[in-house]
Amino acid sequence: MRKPAADGLYIVGKPFVVAIAILVSSAAGANDDLMSAARRLFKPIPSMVPAVKDNPITHEKITLGKSLFFDPRLSASEVISCNTCHNVGMGGVDAGPTSIGHRWQQGTRRAPTVFNAVFNVAQFWDGRAADLKAQAAGPIQAGVEMNATPDRVLSTLNSMTEYVVMFSKAFPNDAAPVTFANFAKAIEAFEATLITPAAPFDQYLEGDGYALSDHQKAGLKLFIEKGCSSCHNGINVGGQDYFPFGVIERPAANLLPRDDRGRFALTKNLSDEYVFRSAPLRNVALRSPYFHSGQVWSLKQAVGVMSEVQLGIKLSDKETDEIVAFLNSLTGQFPKIDYPILPTRTNVTPRPSLDK
Amino acid sequence: MRKPAADGLYIVGKPFVVAIAILVSSAAGANDDLMSAARRLFKPIPSMVPAVKDNPITHEKITLGKSLFFDPRLSASEVISCNTCHNVGMGGVDAGPTSIGHRWQQGTRRAPTVFNAVFNVAQFWDGRAADLKAQAAGPIQAGVEMNATPDRVLSTLNSMTEYVVMFSKAFPNDAAPVTFANFAKAIEAFEATLITPAAPFDQYLEGDGYALSDHQKAGLKLFIEKGCSSCHNGINVGGQDYFPFGVIERPAANLLPRDDRGRFALTKNLSDEYVFRSAPLRNVALRSPYFHSGQVWSLKQAVGVMSEVQLGIKLSDKETDEIVAFLNSLTGQFPKIDYPILPTRTNVTPRPSLDK
Repeated sequence: MRKPAADGLYIVGKPFVVAIAILVSSAAGANDDLMSAARRLFKPIPSMVPAVKDNPITHEKITLGKSLFFDPRLSASEVISCNTCHNVGMGGVDAGPTSIGHRWQQGTRRAPTVFNAVFNVAQFWDGRAADLKAQAAGPIQAGVEMNATPDRVLSTLNSMTEYVVMFSKAFPNDAAPVTFANFAKAIEAFEATLITPAAPFDQYLEGDGYALSDHQKAGLKLFIEKGCSSCHNGINVGGQDYFPFGVIERPAANLLPRDDRGRFALTKNLSDEYVFRSAPLRNVALRSPYFHSGQVWSLKQAVGVMSEVQLGIKLSDKETDEIVAFLNSLTGQFPKIDYPILPTRTNVTPRPSLDK
Repeated sequence: MRKPAADGLYIVGKPFVVAIAILVSSAAGANDDLMSAARRLFKPIPSMVPAVKDNPITHEKITLGKSLFFDPRLSASEVISCNTCHNVGMGGVDAGPTSIGHRWQQGTRRAPTVFNAVFNVAQFWDGRAADLKAQAAGPIQAGVEMNATPDRVLSTLNSMTEYVVMFSKAFPNDAAPVTFANFAKAIEAFEATLITPAAPFDQYLEGDGYALSDHQKAGLKLFIEKGCSSCHNGINVGGQDYFPFGVIERPAANLLPRDDRGRFALTKNLSDEYVFRSAPLRNVALRSPYFHSGQVWSLKQAVGVMSEVQLGIKLSDKETDEIVAFLNSLTGQFPKIDYPILPTRTNVTPRPSLDK
């Protein structure tokens, strides 16, 4: 995958504006040029499951990963599964604003979507997990989320023969396949299947000029020209690099809580204060509320906030509507997911632990 | 559906014991006789969705009901769906012992399974809901469970055009189809599809003498002769009538909490003290922990408790194992359920309410 330049607007935007001027007499030509510009900035979601690093995807691994993803018994309370916060029926997120976890504790950042997450440069809002297998090890142990331990998870999995057999099939070369690392790899394998190809925008990138309405094309043009695509580009229309939230103007305190300084917590570099991975915008129309605090419930309002704090511009109502129309073209086809029949607990399965 | 007699043991058991004595010299005959006795007491789960009263089941109603069943946004917190406590991947129940609901409150009775619930005489442990549509209106409003109100539910549903369209299709003759009664009917329609035919025991009842192992047949024989089938008979091997919990001996306080007096709360008849609907035993091996307090985690232990407090007998270890083997033959085939893609929330969808 190409590494998109952080200053993509400058590189791509300028020649594009020139080209538009030259071709202004030909609507078809302008349309072709818009498509060319889009193709330089973005890539379609493939229709096949992508390869992931150090984790060959097999049917057996996907099947195991799906069961793990849906199994609430992996949390301490046995109430919360991955799907609780990354609901595959709701665009891969929960209702927000931020997730409810163990003992009704509330998280501080909005659940990121699991769909197309495999295409992100790294995982979590601050990119602190290099990939999905690293990510999968996080929430299950977080006290505010699933509150389990690797030991508890392994006890639970080993207590059910069906799981042990599934691990053997998924990791046939491992002498002792039931490990926390393999647990995470299986979840990564399932999550790699959670891709949503064939959005109108994908069809457009594949060369179908009719896949977007004129309204949506106008939005795409604005999205590029106004600078949105400087941070939101690549296959996920975002998620490919890190940028400060509030480039031009400090966002309101409810959008950017003082105690969440983004990647600074990770790198301790002052230049990383308030820096986050740009939000991947695939299926964004399904994933209200927006921003990491989940305090903005309308996509139109979110576009307005971004144009002001990131670009220092005030979009007209018409322009905002056009960009929203374009963002709606990013909604893809969701995979069919059969709800898994989970292994049956046994007498030695750890019991739910509802308290601290 | 025939109404099984509450005193089925007397009616059916006596001639059966006589018959066994006559046919004792012929193993095949004894086997035939066991099958005949079983057929008089039990009925197989059909492979087709049953009709339900006052609610013609259509594909459109099932589709709508499935979305409603999986939609956490119908709870006040927007965290809890029907599936949270009636998990279709875990035999239609949660991990127990009793369910966690709004604000991490814990219910007092174990979640009953949603699978084959359509065949029960009535719903809830105390049968206070006549059918599944009456049941569906309960937990969504219970403060300790989903904590919503009919008004909130209707606001949520009306806020999403996709839901409004689904209601129109499911209730094409209604001028204003989005009602709380129709919400409950759609859930009932989906739940009527949650049946698990083709268990080994069903195949046995259909005439396949090889569907049960000898061990399981011995268990079935004990189940009838010892008296279990007096309360657990009919299509669901239970769930067909009401009986006192603790006929012979008062169960331990953790199994029968003093403040849960069963149907007495409903009827105010002293004769209904500690009376509950007999537990339906279909798929019981998948649904630990047992009893309404969910305090017994092993099926073998549950069988032991029941024989003592209900029948006043002490089963041998071998007998208990045989009955457990028979109960394992009640595990059927689960329907394939595609996870629904839920309608997208809009600006007017009620927001999550996490507090009281």
